[in-house]
Amino acid sequence: MINKEIPYKIYLEESEMPKSWINLRAFMKNKPAPLLNPKTFEPITLDELSNVFCTELARQELDDTSEYIEIPKEVRDFYKMYRPSPLVRAYCLEKLLDTPAKIYYKFEGNNTSGSHKLNSAIAQAYYAKEQGLKGVTTETGAGQWGTALSMACSYFGLDCKVFMVKCSYEQKPFRREVMRTYGADVTPSPSMTTEVGRKINEEFPGTTGSLGCAISEAVETASSLDGYRYALGSVLNQVLLHQSVIGLETKTALDKYDIKADIVIGCAGGGSNLGGLISPFMVEKIQGEKDYRIIAVEPASCPSLTRGKYAYDYCDTGKVCPLAKMYTLGSGYIPAATHAGGLRYHGMTSTLSELKHQGLIEATTVKQTEVFEAAQKFARIEGILPAPESAHAIKVAIDEALKCKETGEEKTIVFGLTGTGYFDMMSYQKFNDGIMKDYIPTDEELQVALSKLPKI
Amino acid sequence: MINKEIPYKIYLEESEMPKSWINLRAFMKNKPAPLLNPKTFEPITLDELSNVFCTELARQELDDTSEYIEIPKEVRDFYKMYRPSPLVRAYCLEKLLDTPAKIYYKFEGNNTSGSHKLNSAIAQAYYAKEQGLKGVTTETGAGQWGTALSMACSYFGLDCKVFMVKCSYEQKPFRREVMRTYGADVTPSPSMTTEVGRKINEEFPGTTGSLGCAISEAVETASSLDGYRYALGSVLNQVLLHQSVIGLETKTALDKYDIKADIVIGCAGGGSNLGGLISPFMVEKIQGEKDYRIIAVEPASCPSLTRGKYAYDYCDTGKVCPLAKMYTLGSGYIPAATHAGGLRYHGMTSTLSELKHQGLIEATTVKQTEVFEAAQKFARIEGILPAPESAHAIKVAIDEALKCKETGEEKTIVFGLTGTGYFDMMSYQKFNDGIMKDYIPTDEELQVALSKLPKI
Repeated sequence: MINKEIPYKIYLEESEMPKSWINLRAFMKNKPAPLLNPKTFEPITLDELSNVFCTELARQELDDTSEYIEIPKEVRDFYKMYRPSPLVRAYCLEKLLDTPAKIYYKFEGNNTSGSHKLNSAIAQAYYAKEQGLKGVTTETGAGQWGTALSMACSYFGLDCKVFMVKCSYEQKPFRREVMRTYGADVTPSPSMTTEVGRKINEEFPGTTGSLGCAISEAVETASSLDGYRYALGSVLNQVLLHQSVIGLETKTALDKYDIKADIVIGCAGGGSNLGGLISPFMVEKIQGEKDYRIIAVEPASCPSLTRGKYAYDYCDTGKVCPLAKMYTLGSGYIPAATHAGGLRYHGMTSTLSELKHQGLIEATTVKQTEVFEAAQKFARIEGILPAPESAHAIKVAIDEALKCKETGEEKTIVFGLTGTGYFDMMSYQKFNDGIMKDYIPTDEELQVALSKLPKI
Repeated sequence: MINKEIPYKIYLEESEMPKSWINLRAFMKNKPAPLLNPKTFEPITLDELSNVFCTELARQELDDTSEYIEIPKEVRDFYKMYRPSPLVRAYCLEKLLDTPAKIYYKFEGNNTSGSHKLNSAIAQAYYAKEQGLKGVTTETGAGQWGTALSMACSYFGLDCKVFMVKCSYEQKPFRREVMRTYGADVTPSPSMTTEVGRKINEEFPGTTGSLGCAISEAVETASSLDGYRYALGSVLNQVLLHQSVIGLETKTALDKYDIKADIVIGCAGGGSNLGGLISPFMVEKIQGEKDYRIIAVEPASCPSLTRGKYAYDYCDTGKVCPLAKMYTLGSGYIPAATHAGGLRYHGMTSTLSELKHQGLIEATTVKQTEVFEAAQKFARIEGILPAPESAHAIKVAIDEALKCKETGEEKTIVFGLTGTGYFDMMSYQKFNDGIMKDYIPTDEELQVALSKLPKI
């Protein structure tokens, strides 16, 4: 296959689509630390976790030994409706940058949720249906996860209750209608409908919310309703497992054309996209077969991997969820209302945190104005209007390609283009009008939230 | 290839993508009547038309003898960024309807313009660039064409001025920002910046506009600026030519799996999608090789093919464009402000009009509430949130599939899913809230506009 001409878009055949997810943790020599029960601080058990999540998902959450887990046929059939996603060669961007680098992006935006989130949503809805549940509750930041779960629930005939981070709810008025079209209930968070929501509203009047708050509200609601469980779109091990379909397809497409990636880049909020994208690459890196530079890109306003502490912390603001050992800014940290709602999470999935801790991945931060500059450049030349979250990866991919221009190196750069920005036009408007600002927390600000980390 | 399993989505290889457009008119025994000069009522000449359009596009407009016209390499390269579009087997919809029919849809929504419009926009921008123009002006109804042309102009470094039908401008506030992100100017139409706009505003105070008005404004603006020409996203012969890429890909994909379509369905506003979709099928039908039922679906509020008159009429409200012989409701007809802005055109491309006149295509109307019902059903089971325009075709495809259920016939239904509804959420909201109304003009209302047809 060497020297075969690389098409603009590499689509796999249905027969080449993954039949199993890959469980990155199973390949790690030093595993991520176990989740802890928020009341006892002891490692959480399957029984305890099954009160929060569907039983099968709780099992996946705790499984750090099965290397591959079969994708149920019903999920694979749904995947066929919008996958395989294309691996795109950014010929036009390369030309614009005049770089010898070869740039590829795995584009996950060609589905109505607008992002990669559907990959895990459909799996979670499937297991909920299998267990005979009535419905699920969840949180959503940018709205992509909420849309994805609404779609998945409507497909399987499940009820879906979504708590949407207030700043996104206000910035993205039409997101609610998409979810409603799929039959979901949407509540801005923090709300007055849950105990934890009322408490947060009282403590921080006028707060624009955070993923951490919304998670607590969704968990509380699920536990108060019969036949409901909670579903989460990022951070969890199960989500990284499901999202490994991104990396597996990417790797298969590259291998098909004998392409070896040098750098793999992804935006990182809770870590769902990056964790999924890098899974098969990281396995090769761990096993010493091939080397890859892997870069997590965070917003400067919410820099968990780069400026957080590697410690046990609550996954949610309300402290109702299990604790995870992760890079965290503190579960009480509420980031500035930037325009990448999907990256406003105080922590980072434990797997990526442990990999960062081991020096197997790098992390960097970018400011939102430079992110939107990169987004506009990309939109104009590659035709795709990216989500602000995704544009974090674009920014760093461009930077790396420009470094190659300086050094003359023909590196192969692969990045995850997680979604589209059609519901982010208020943010683009601010950028177009030149009134977008950057937010970088001071060390003192970070110290406040970090000082409240649980003592474990 | 017989009995080969049909994948959910059929993607052609790059090498299978069309290298030439097909010019349906060249195959017609009775050609559509020629365009007329609006001042002399004589057939318009290449020189005259070249004052309005780029010269090469004017040539294509008048060419009814070349059966195939090569797609320039630059355009084919751009096509590779978002094409081939998938031909999707609607397995889930079939199952939901419990029909023996086999339903396929050609999905043109996987690009940032959100629709098929980009197919012609990039061609028109290319020829404008080749001619050394500074920019182009245009109109947009639903906003899809304006977005498409903005994208195409930004790619080739051309200026783009867009007149957007006022009702869409108001219903779709974020469309403007997408166009602006691509560097375009957007003005709601009728505006006060053109003579024709001021006149229409005076005559119909508070009008929500129409494609016909916006066209006049764009033409006037182009002719008043040096180095500008006008670009139009539908109705024209050149647009049908470029849009034939939809039909050619569809036909190639079907042929690859030995599938013979029985019914081909498309929504029809100006006719760009339907004309492009049916081109290669209609050629076979004209040549007596194969038979197809071809159905144009119109909104009940703007029923040109079904309730209009087949006569020469102006293509625009301001009467500055050439006249075409077509099914028309009269260029003064301003349809109700329904939620399918892209279908609110008083006429129908002359090629489809002539084919209808010859009995080679059928036409039907549907009401917007039943269109949104079909859209919601489709979104929930096939995962794609359709544009209201596209959902007109979905409605009729479902109806035909249900007829097959009654008769037990295993017909193959192919329809054009022209785009996505991400910028139509205000319309979906009205539907979700149960406050959407239907508009059907009375015979008397239609008679008023028809009585003003030019006497030719």
